[in-house]
Amino acid sequence: MANIYDKLLHLPLFQGVTHERLEEIIEKIPFHFLKFRRGDRIISRGDDCTHVRFVISGRVRVEYESRALKFKISHELASPEVISPDYLFGLDTSYPFSVYACEECGILQVAKQDYITILHSDNVFLINILNYLSRNSQNQKSQLLNIENASVVERLAMLVNTFTSQRSQNITLLFKQKDLCRLLGARRPAFMGAIDYLIDNKIIEMPDNSTMQIKDRKLMLALLKGEI
Amino acid sequence: MANIYDKLLHLPLFQGVTHERLEEIIEKIPFHFLKFRRGDRIISRGDDCTHVRFVISGRVRVEYESRALKFKISHELASPEVISPDYLFGLDTSYPFSVYACEECGILQVAKQDYITILHSDNVFLINILNYLSRNSQNQKSQLLNIENASVVERLAMLVNTFTSQRSQNITLLFKQKDLCRLLGARRPAFMGAIDYLIDNKIIEMPDNSTMQIKDRKLMLALLKGEI
Repeated sequence: MANIYDKLLHLPLFQGVTHERLEEIIEKIPFHFLKFRRGDRIISRGDDCTHVRFVISGRVRVEYESRALKFKISHELASPEVISPDYLFGLDTSYPFSVYACEECGILQVAKQDYITILHSDNVFLINILNYLSRNSQNQKSQLLNIENASVVERLAMLVNTFTSQRSQNITLLFKQKDLCRLLGARRPAFMGAIDYLIDNKIIEMPDNSTMQIKDRKLMLALLKGEI
Repeated sequence: MANIYDKLLHLPLFQGVTHERLEEIIEKIPFHFLKFRRGDRIISRGDDCTHVRFVISGRVRVEYESRALKFKISHELASPEVISPDYLFGLDTSYPFSVYACEECGILQVAKQDYITILHSDNVFLINILNYLSRNSQNQKSQLLNIENASVVERLAMLVNTFTSQRSQNITLLFKQKDLCRLLGARRPAFMGAIDYLIDNKIIEMPDNSTMQIKDRKLMLALLKGEI
């Protein structure tokens, strides 16, 4: 059980809370522990977000897909991690992505109403979720305001930033070139130039013409701040 | 004083709370009421967001400016309204915009620490801010996923949506055409075509070549959902 406590204390929304407070909460609030096998679907796009969900062991893949264009972006999250708590509240509480188990993995889920009780129980929980949601909300405006010259490379970096987070791993884009170009507002030659630049700088790899793997997200986002 | 209570109960983050609870809070928590005159600067870009701030009378103008490109977007907020509470928490707590009084206006401000006390005092306050922040966080991903064909018109609508909210009025863009085209990833002919379409549909007006006024934000955003 000590092991489980340690894991919980490292979850993004639980960080900074005391062991004692966590114990109190686990005694009062139902924590559901679920097990999934490699390839299992954990969340289907369109599912209602009724629980806050955490990856407490293993890895999951989060997949977004454009409704009208041939464009998918996915990334992996390894434990300890929270799965997009920004759909628990707000106008639309259905998940816009699907989540699959990359390997055997454990998910902890807490019902929305119980999570609200947790938020009231300690300032640390409250500040953690407010920080998480605010950071996401600030993100888009600040990257548009700080853009250097709105090159195709920068616009691609913004797109990746919108759908991933600091701890995202193995970020992969699957696309029809024409559709990704439309999404970026890029003509084919400028798009190809951007790709070459990113490959040369070891930021991405392109195993084929419609698959892009982000090898270095941090370096890619540094482009947005004019750091490289 | 009845008048003030009524105003407070209509503020976005206070909606749904009982008159009694609001009274209790006002007795315990310092509410600061400030007066500004037409043209006064209320917030300067870069100011630290130490308080949650509300417009309780009059109107203010919120101005964002690109760091490197010639591009500004501004909109007006009329009372009762909250001024971007998404900078109170998160990674960067400095305002990325300036705010000016459009006319004589009253601002209510509550210190961050006091606002946290308010959040703990009643579920309604907590749910209101979680909804507000989550909506902003969801916004960008969902508009990118739901885009129809990523036309210049759609990309312009996304840009406007990013910087404004449902109750924004008199939205104005000031720009160098070359820079706005870069930001949208649009060539000049496609940009001009988009402008003509939007003017013909009474969605925007262009008093001159570098000024765009959004006349109908709702209609503009309907473009993103393929509704028109």
